[in-house]
Amino acid sequence: MKFGVIGAGSWGCAFANLLVENSHDVLVWARRKEIVHEINSLKKISYLNGILPLFKATNNIQEVVDFSDYLIIAIPVQFIRENLAKISGWKNVKGIINLSKGLEIKTLKRVSEIVRDFVDLPYTVLSGPSHAEEVAEKIPTAVTIAGGNTSELQKFFSNDYFRVYTSIDVAGVEISGALKNVMAIAAGILDGFGGWDNAKAALMTRALFEMIKFGKIFDADERTFFGLSGVGDLMVTCNSRHSRNRLLGEFIAKGKTLSEIVKSSKMVAEGMYTVKAVVNIASQQSIDMPISKEVYKILYENKDPKISMLDLMRRPLKEEWYI
Amino acid sequence: MKFGVIGAGSWGCAFANLLVENSHDVLVWARRKEIVHEINSLKKISYLNGILPLFKATNNIQEVVDFSDYLIIAIPVQFIRENLAKISGWKNVKGIINLSKGLEIKTLKRVSEIVRDFVDLPYTVLSGPSHAEEVAEKIPTAVTIAGGNTSELQKFFSNDYFRVYTSIDVAGVEISGALKNVMAIAAGILDGFGGWDNAKAALMTRALFEMIKFGKIFDADERTFFGLSGVGDLMVTCNSRHSRNRLLGEFIAKGKTLSEIVKSSKMVAEGMYTVKAVVNIASQQSIDMPISKEVYKILYENKDPKISMLDLMRRPLKEEWYI
Repeated sequence: MKFGVIGAGSWGCAFANLLVENSHDVLVWARRKEIVHEINSLKKISYLNGILPLFKATNNIQEVVDFSDYLIIAIPVQFIRENLAKISGWKNVKGIINLSKGLEIKTLKRVSEIVRDFVDLPYTVLSGPSHAEEVAEKIPTAVTIAGGNTSELQKFFSNDYFRVYTSIDVAGVEISGALKNVMAIAAGILDGFGGWDNAKAALMTRALFEMIKFGKIFDADERTFFGLSGVGDLMVTCNSRHSRNRLLGEFIAKGKTLSEIVKSSKMVAEGMYTVKAVVNIASQQSIDMPISKEVYKILYENKDPKISMLDLMRRPLKEEWYI
Repeated sequence: MKFGVIGAGSWGCAFANLLVENSHDVLVWARRKEIVHEINSLKKISYLNGILPLFKATNNIQEVVDFSDYLIIAIPVQFIRENLAKISGWKNVKGIINLSKGLEIKTLKRVSEIVRDFVDLPYTVLSGPSHAEEVAEKIPTAVTIAGGNTSELQKFFSNDYFRVYTSIDVAGVEISGALKNVMAIAAGILDGFGGWDNAKAALMTRALFEMIKFGKIFDADERTFFGLSGVGDLMVTCNSRHSRNRLLGEFIAKGKTLSEIVKSSKMVAEGMYTVKAVVNIASQQSIDMPISKEVYKILYENKDPKISMLDLMRRPLKEEWYI
């Protein structure tokens, strides 16, 4: 099968390598010419140290689309719309698979909705605890896919070290994937304080319920949040040293400002954008999202992170089952 | 209120300090005379570095019972029966609160059932992500209590840094607390491999469902497993550097044998006992507990931990919702 991958970040490249390992033909689109050169000529991937690219890359997005049976999206959510707008025809593409996790700030849309603004093709979202670095190194990983063609795609993507489970809950997988990045910023803040493990576990427990509550706006299935794309991805993102969102929180707790952090990092921490959309949607829908709201206040209103976290911990005592 | 605490381990002592902070009178029973001497005369707690004991200790268990309005159990589960057997009368005791997490190997009983073999008093279990070290240092912590007198106990235990939520699901809180120690051994094994974060998150997601499945034998409420005593405690136990169970797994993955680890550690990793009861009960009930079974095989049948973990990851592909 021929797969085009839009985006040559760490996840796009790791997934492209996985597809080649699974005997598919792969062409990757990179926005910057230096990256194309790096991949095709220098045989290296900047974001994946020591990993050999098994695929070719191009700077021409239409070439990738024309090549593809399936098109894979792996760029930061805020850039999906402008890049899909460059595509002039969809030729043989029979489905779109999205690897990106977030919400579009401008429109408050999920990726499935952004895609539908351009083309009416079967859409599949892939999510779960899957740091690119580990997939690239063939360390066992399990993910969930939801949407169209899942039984076919399950076979194309799975192998000995990459296990793909199927679901029918597109909204749940999208929302859990988007929200866990916001929660990971909060978890990272507690890491930054040093030794707040109990508080972090309590926060993550509450985070899961906040994610479910948000998902209900989109008729997401509660059970999805207890699966790989929910609690699984939440755990890895809140705990792994690879997680950009967790690290962002850690730096914030240690006194860095958001603009200092953004300037010093090449990679995008999706949660810092997603939280804007979340807070907006929550306010429109009049639902209470305490953790998201505190993350927003810390990042964009200079609220002291310790006061924020203590405010969260000191909410009135209730029974455990409050939603 | 007068609280007696059976057990002067790290959690017993941290909880005793918390109670004194909350203006209660506290007397702690320690099995060994050296510990009593350390606490009363040297003003130190061996298991909690740098923390001053705010309470008195005694070697006489009946003295603690006679002193108490409420009696708190904080000793390893396998020793609860022999110590309760020493108690000759319950005088003013109006309730028992259990802080210990596990199942009795010999009888396959939960702690509530062990207690009921001796006395018919209101029983309450306290559980959740609460490493003693952090509670002793007054770092914010949230826990769940389930059983008798919860609204009174919630007030007695809660303060600015210790938040207590109430539940009515005693079995769920007991089972989730017991099982997470088994799961933490598996998580620690993956930590020991180095860089298996994706696999660890996938395993923990599956672990949660395995815990729920086991809980159903005891009519536990599924939702309890998504709360502080379930997913919350699972997260802290599988991730924290403080966790003895996680650490046990890490040492196993690095090639140490169980007996070497037990010899070199003063503290008890409850999961290594609990897993025996779990595997036994699961076999009696004919329910499949794949993670627990692999932990058992690794600890007691010398199965290679890497083969075990790969066996778990390579189970047949299914839909995400398989239980």
